[in-house]
Amino acid sequence: MKTKKHDRILLAHGGGGQLTDELIRHHILPSFNNDTLAELADSAKLNLASKSVCFTTDSYVVKPLFFNGGDIGKLAVCGTINDLAVVGSEPVALALSLIIEEGFEFELLEKILASISEAASANGVDVVAGDTKTVEAGAADKIFINTSGIGVRLDGVDLGLNKITVGDKIIINGTIGDHGMTIISQREDIKFQSQLKSDCAGLAGLTCELLRNVSGVKFMRDPTRGGLAATLNEISRGSGLNIKINEADVPVNPTVQAAADMLGFDVLTIANEGKFVAIVAPESADDCLNICKNHSLGKEASIIGEVVETRDAPMVEIETKIGGKRIVQMPYGRQLPRIC
Amino acid sequence: MKTKKHDRILLAHGGGGQLTDELIRHHILPSFNNDTLAELADSAKLNLASKSVCFTTDSYVVKPLFFNGGDIGKLAVCGTINDLAVVGSEPVALALSLIIEEGFEFELLEKILASISEAASANGVDVVAGDTKTVEAGAADKIFINTSGIGVRLDGVDLGLNKITVGDKIIINGTIGDHGMTIISQREDIKFQSQLKSDCAGLAGLTCELLRNVSGVKFMRDPTRGGLAATLNEISRGSGLNIKINEADVPVNPTVQAAADMLGFDVLTIANEGKFVAIVAPESADDCLNICKNHSLGKEASIIGEVVETRDAPMVEIETKIGGKRIVQMPYGRQLPRIC
Repeated sequence: MKTKKHDRILLAHGGGGQLTDELIRHHILPSFNNDTLAELADSAKLNLASKSVCFTTDSYVVKPLFFNGGDIGKLAVCGTINDLAVVGSEPVALALSLIIEEGFEFELLEKILASISEAASANGVDVVAGDTKTVEAGAADKIFINTSGIGVRLDGVDLGLNKITVGDKIIINGTIGDHGMTIISQREDIKFQSQLKSDCAGLAGLTCELLRNVSGVKFMRDPTRGGLAATLNEISRGSGLNIKINEADVPVNPTVQAAADMLGFDVLTIANEGKFVAIVAPESADDCLNICKNHSLGKEASIIGEVVETRDAPMVEIETKIGGKRIVQMPYGRQLPRIC
Repeated sequence: MKTKKHDRILLAHGGGGQLTDELIRHHILPSFNNDTLAELADSAKLNLASKSVCFTTDSYVVKPLFFNGGDIGKLAVCGTINDLAVVGSEPVALALSLIIEEGFEFELLEKILASISEAASANGVDVVAGDTKTVEAGAADKIFINTSGIGVRLDGVDLGLNKITVGDKIIINGTIGDHGMTIISQREDIKFQSQLKSDCAGLAGLTCELLRNVSGVKFMRDPTRGGLAATLNEISRGSGLNIKINEADVPVNPTVQAAADMLGFDVLTIANEGKFVAIVAPESADDCLNICKNHSLGKEASIIGEVVETRDAPMVEIETKIGGKRIVQMPYGRQLPRIC
């Protein structure tokens, strides 16, 4: 039973008293239907399937809060799930922490909570713990969300940059730049003929299927902030090897490419929220690609390049569509604040 | 080797590129010296001592950032450790997420990171995962910190509100209101003859010692936001039983009492950050008290009351020093924003 006495968040909703209790019992708990959370203990008590777990955290400050393809709530679930997925674990539990600006509309909060709940269910994880803080008007921009997550490591899976060797193939599960260009264009209120849509999605279903069926996966990472350029540079530096990719093989939605060109962005540096890069032994590459292509989140998967010998320092090189070569630099980081 | 090119946080420090990498490698990693974090994987890989774990999250928005007895960093570590401690677990790992306002001074960030590191070490936990976001000037108030934590449940310990029965004793490990009154008086720039000092401390050492040595502990909770009043009301409601406490037995630092009286606060509603309330079987109460009194964080521990029959609805009653009785209400929550 909801007692909607307030349309907007008050500072007192974060005071730890009666109003906090109402907020939690009438607005937050009903969104997340599980016994562990319902206990409202100081910590959630979990019985995991294994002692070998993964643990991660991310705060989300995306602006605008709602965008085509998702919102800050869906993003907060998928982003953390993806961090658990790419290290070779199956996500099982999330903890959710909200920092809310005084005056934030309850209607928007409920939309975000519904979205969190839906994304968690869709990805088979429970929100088992939470926290809500309020700050005075002007001390935060509407709402910030932190999610932390626990995943159980898949049996026999041991991914690492140190496993990567020359000849390994580089696979991505679909088009790049969709999330970042959606946020930017919506923030700048720029319209394109075809609508841009964030790729925001939880990848654990696909990554677990890959890891359970293909033995040659050596490393995975989700190219979020900094985009494919940052992730490939991290992989190159971490493995001490060069990476060579072919521009023609990197899937890009034409509207995303047009938007990036128009606004002066290199699509390689634009954030993704439903993509992973996998480094795979050459003999496993086709199996990987097939599993991706048969999954809804991998229909446009592509082998985009390979790991090669390093000459001097490790670097990432791209062969352009017109046959030229250039180095893909680590982006500096200035271009796209509050993308996630 | 630190390359301090910047005195203040730039938006680009959160962009996921080169500057984020510098921030992490030169400022954050050196504060937390452990192999799990140093791997900089998308999630930390942990091998826990048990499958039976506790998991919690809290965001910290305290204002001011630095206060007598601690700062937002120490608070963020101790608060989350305490949430793990009071449910009967031994904290093992923290994940740390920073939301930083553009322009925040690196010098302050480093002080906070040092404080986080010190508090984590003092409490025997590792910071194994992290995240840093930046937002533009004016979109957050300096810095917000989220910590989430994993604890391993103590063998044979099973605490719960459902264990509480009539006759159980209520123990607190020391004086109440110190944290809240310190923050308030510092925020309002009010000086008292004796200096107020936050009780901010990690309780896991003491709670684990108690739980390993005394079998009659039934439930614990740390009275943070909403103070002892909120915690006792939650325990009363959750157990369906009345709680009766004696004002004369509740330890209060005289300066805290004077500050509360002067500013018109009920000290029972003021936040604590180094206290727990334990509900203990009567035959175990003295053992509990002794263990507390022999620990640096429990020297002023006291049996403050007991669990009694409910007449109508469960409630908390206090017998005042002058022999009167009053009901201790659940605080509304309005009084003390940003106390933690």
